[in-house]
Amino acid sequence: MVSALQQHIQKFVRIPDEDMSGILACFTPLHLKKKENLLAEGNVCHANYFVVKGCLRMFYINDKGDEQTIQFALENWWMADYDSFTHQKPGLFSIQAVERAEVLALHYQAQEKMLAQYPVMERYYRLMHQRAHAASQRRIRGQYNFSREDQYLNFARQYPEFVQRVPQYLLASFLGFTPEYLSEIRAKRRS
Amino acid sequence: MVSALQQHIQKFVRIPDEDMSGILACFTPLHLKKKENLLAEGNVCHANYFVVKGCLRMFYINDKGDEQTIQFALENWWMADYDSFTHQKPGLFSIQAVERAEVLALHYQAQEKMLAQYPVMERYYRLMHQRAHAASQRRIRGQYNFSREDQYLNFARQYPEFVQRVPQYLLASFLGFTPEYLSEIRAKRRS
Repeated sequence: MVSALQQHIQKFVRIPDEDMSGILACFTPLHLKKKENLLAEGNVCHANYFVVKGCLRMFYINDKGDEQTIQFALENWWMADYDSFTHQKPGLFSIQAVERAEVLALHYQAQEKMLAQYPVMERYYRLMHQRAHAASQRRIRGQYNFSREDQYLNFARQYPEFVQRVPQYLLASFLGFTPEYLSEIRAKRRS
Repeated sequence: MVSALQQHIQKFVRIPDEDMSGILACFTPLHLKKKENLLAEGNVCHANYFVVKGCLRMFYINDKGDEQTIQFALENWWMADYDSFTHQKPGLFSIQAVERAEVLALHYQAQEKMLAQYPVMERYYRLMHQRAHAASQRRIRGQYNFSREDQYLNFARQYPEFVQRVPQYLLASFLGFTPEYLSEIRAKRRS
């Protein structure tokens, strides 16, 4: 299970073999059932999660009492409530497995120990967060620039596999649509 | 001018005095006039910018030909088009001084050299990007959750000084309002 993470780390930084096993030992493997929760809103986010297999989503309960999905993570992506994780204080988000998933958890204390022992991992995480920062700039641009229909079409073009895998009502929530509106767009596209 | 950056770095990481001067020497000080451009859409973002004094904004030209502001940076914030900066390829955003500004630029090559020589700075930038990542999660949550009026009120509560300093038409653009709609909300609040 750790080999996916090992390959991912090696794409971004060079790590001697003897250090790699020490680094990988810092992670806790988790097997999640579909809809199993990793984190509940209002609790402290104790770990940063790397998706080996499956899909996670991040959501919160909105004023109407509905779950509002704000982010997904597929294979090779990291997910955490970073405000909660950084300051180890109660957070604003829940994290749940969309489908059966294999995840590697890096707990806060394990991370601090790992970064002290293997500072090269600071570079890996710097690059991960920089990439996420760039993605959020593109996402915010898209939210201003495109109609809701265009946002869906862009998303479907960028992540075709994803649109197939994720239940439609979750995709609709993420895009800020009703499931009915999403069905309409898809029907229009097929016709 | 570098002392603001030195203080900021020392808040996050411990650096021996003899290394600090080497680190600070990697930055290029810039004095910008009001409305001076640091980066134009379609060009490569050559540097990551730290605001010592003043305010920067990031924007793009939308389909209607209007400038759409997506981000501001006040004192002690970093700003760059991170996709363009990371891959040194043409980017999607422009960066401009909102008011007279003093900025420290860390050019791409200077960054790579600095990080190789002072790897502790990987930790500093990891923490900066992690903080920005957390802020974008909160921002995206707010965009789903709040009415446009509430988004303004939240923003004004969180950054009162900012709302005073930034021209109203830029603030309106950032919030996705027309300037007229922003005036209406402000008038309603005063009454």
